[in-house]
Amino acid sequence: MVGEHYQHIKARLERYRLMTLAEMLEVIGTREPRRYLYDIVPSYPSRSGKGLRPGLCIGTCCAYGGEFANAIGSAAAIELFHNAFLVHDDIEDGSEFRRGLPTIHAEHGVPIAVNVGDAMNVLSIRPLMGNRRLLGPELAWRILEEVEHMVRQSVEGQALELGWVHDNACELTDDDYLRMTLKKTCWYTCIHPCRIGALIGARGEVDVNRFNRFGYYMGAAFQIRDDVLNLIGEHAKYGKEIGGDVLEGKRTLILIHLLRHCSAGEKKRIRQFLQAPRDRHRAGDAEWVFRLMQTYGSIDHANSAARNLAGAALHEFAVAYGQLPETEDKQFVHDIILYMIERDS
Amino acid sequence: MVGEHYQHIKARLERYRLMTLAEMLEVIGTREPRRYLYDIVPSYPSRSGKGLRPGLCIGTCCAYGGEFANAIGSAAAIELFHNAFLVHDDIEDGSEFRRGLPTIHAEHGVPIAVNVGDAMNVLSIRPLMGNRRLLGPELAWRILEEVEHMVRQSVEGQALELGWVHDNACELTDDDYLRMTLKKTCWYTCIHPCRIGALIGARGEVDVNRFNRFGYYMGAAFQIRDDVLNLIGEHAKYGKEIGGDVLEGKRTLILIHLLRHCSAGEKKRIRQFLQAPRDRHRAGDAEWVFRLMQTYGSIDHANSAARNLAGAALHEFAVAYGQLPETEDKQFVHDIILYMIERDS
Repeated sequence: MVGEHYQHIKARLERYRLMTLAEMLEVIGTREPRRYLYDIVPSYPSRSGKGLRPGLCIGTCCAYGGEFANAIGSAAAIELFHNAFLVHDDIEDGSEFRRGLPTIHAEHGVPIAVNVGDAMNVLSIRPLMGNRRLLGPELAWRILEEVEHMVRQSVEGQALELGWVHDNACELTDDDYLRMTLKKTCWYTCIHPCRIGALIGARGEVDVNRFNRFGYYMGAAFQIRDDVLNLIGEHAKYGKEIGGDVLEGKRTLILIHLLRHCSAGEKKRIRQFLQAPRDRHRAGDAEWVFRLMQTYGSIDHANSAARNLAGAALHEFAVAYGQLPETEDKQFVHDIILYMIERDS
Repeated sequence: MVGEHYQHIKARLERYRLMTLAEMLEVIGTREPRRYLYDIVPSYPSRSGKGLRPGLCIGTCCAYGGEFANAIGSAAAIELFHNAFLVHDDIEDGSEFRRGLPTIHAEHGVPIAVNVGDAMNVLSIRPLMGNRRLLGPELAWRILEEVEHMVRQSVEGQALELGWVHDNACELTDDDYLRMTLKKTCWYTCIHPCRIGALIGARGEVDVNRFNRFGYYMGAAFQIRDDVLNLIGEHAKYGKEIGGDVLEGKRTLILIHLLRHCSAGEKKRIRQFLQAPRDRHRAGDAEWVFRLMQTYGSIDHANSAARNLAGAALHEFAVAYGQLPETEDKQFVHDIILYMIERDS
């Protein structure tokens, strides 16, 4: 895709993201207690993100003939859950930076950060209650059920990933990775935003299972590209510490490929590296793992997998959206697929 | 009250607690992934508790003419939220024991414990969705709104308390404590269980605000008695480390009283003690604080406050339940008040 075309996608992503952010800030409000709760809650949502979830949710709603205004509350709920998840995820991974700024637990300590995440979880229920008046009780219940499934899948995927780090698992396959990513990423980043958007746009008259394969391929492509960018992106552009995933021992497709292809001696040393607490790593160890990933083509493997998954997502787009009239939003959802793969931040 | 009478209350509390536990375990199920998630989730719920919340919710439902079976799902939702809150609360406070066994983060580490709490939070939505068929969509929505308010109050109260520890606040008043306790404890331990039980029992035909003062007095009495037991109870009976609250720097009514009545020199030393990380305390320091609490009558003050609040709750009982026919459940809710104050574990 050419640069100008990207500008169109980015502009619409940004428009939907900001609409959703405005709704989130409205939901958060300016309540007491401020200092250790409501002043901190807007921190992550306000850090500029890509807006993939609001884009898919609102874009799909419009592509299915709905009003964008009807999807903003649900998009805000999804984003609030997402940000709650990020706050806790950063604690669980011991991450120091998020979108270029210190993580909440790095700034305020773990106790306050755990509670801030809990507050965001409960705040996300509010716009879903608002759906009752906006969309009627029947549709509002269906959307709540979608969200319940979405959040449950995320914690189950998170449990898989935390278990791997806890057990220092070094014999994983690409299939293991994709199963974990389906649970941890795809449902809440792609599948449910599309399902919920379509439910609203079509007033409930749609079989939402048609988005499952589309969202799975797209979400997996997105996550793998994210893992690559975590490794090779520049700090300023990406806003996370480079090589953070390596330091945190995350079982990315890249690491799994490396463990499968390196020599027995290298594998032994990588396993020791992964076993050691983060602050016990010797200088240069992470750099050594990174160079091995280049040597064994692990990063190329991940990029190739992401492109293949994006191709499958393009194919599934026809199933999920093909029968709809040609609209700007239909085109927008289509174009997000390649944009997410080709982005460099 | 005489011993035999207590046995009646305890038996009914236990009956409602076990019914609710059975429902919780049904909701949790035996899903994958088990090892780092669903095998751990039942841990806290299965540890024997007092059953105050299920007792108030189901008892109030029955006192208001409802079937106990209609309140079990909502009681399970409240208990799941409560247990999720405990998992995160124990992380936030650095607690080592809960009901006589290691806390989840002590056993499995903080990352897995944060995620287990998140899982319990989302699981608690399931029985609330079940209310839709059981009680109809209108009543089910009202109960969801109650729960949303309940959870939000809890995280706000938690933020107040964490802020005090974070700032090493030493100039608090009894009113500050009661405001925090209203938010952190009373809403979810007493007020909302009663409100939700009455909504179900009366099929929505009840002004639930009548329970607010009753639940506030009762919840505050309960919490203050809990704080006293944390100090003076025996480990085996109470199941938490003795003096845990002192070590964690919790701003109990007892500590607040002591800080107000001790000498300037003692206050300075207590402030230093509270400021120091838990593992830096010198042996005997917590014991010294405890003895000061006895010397200055701080424990007597708390016991007296709890009794006064229980008296106020008995008075408010007439407002909330007085007009109802005399039933075993009405008597049961009434008797819980004194039982909670006079219990020694």
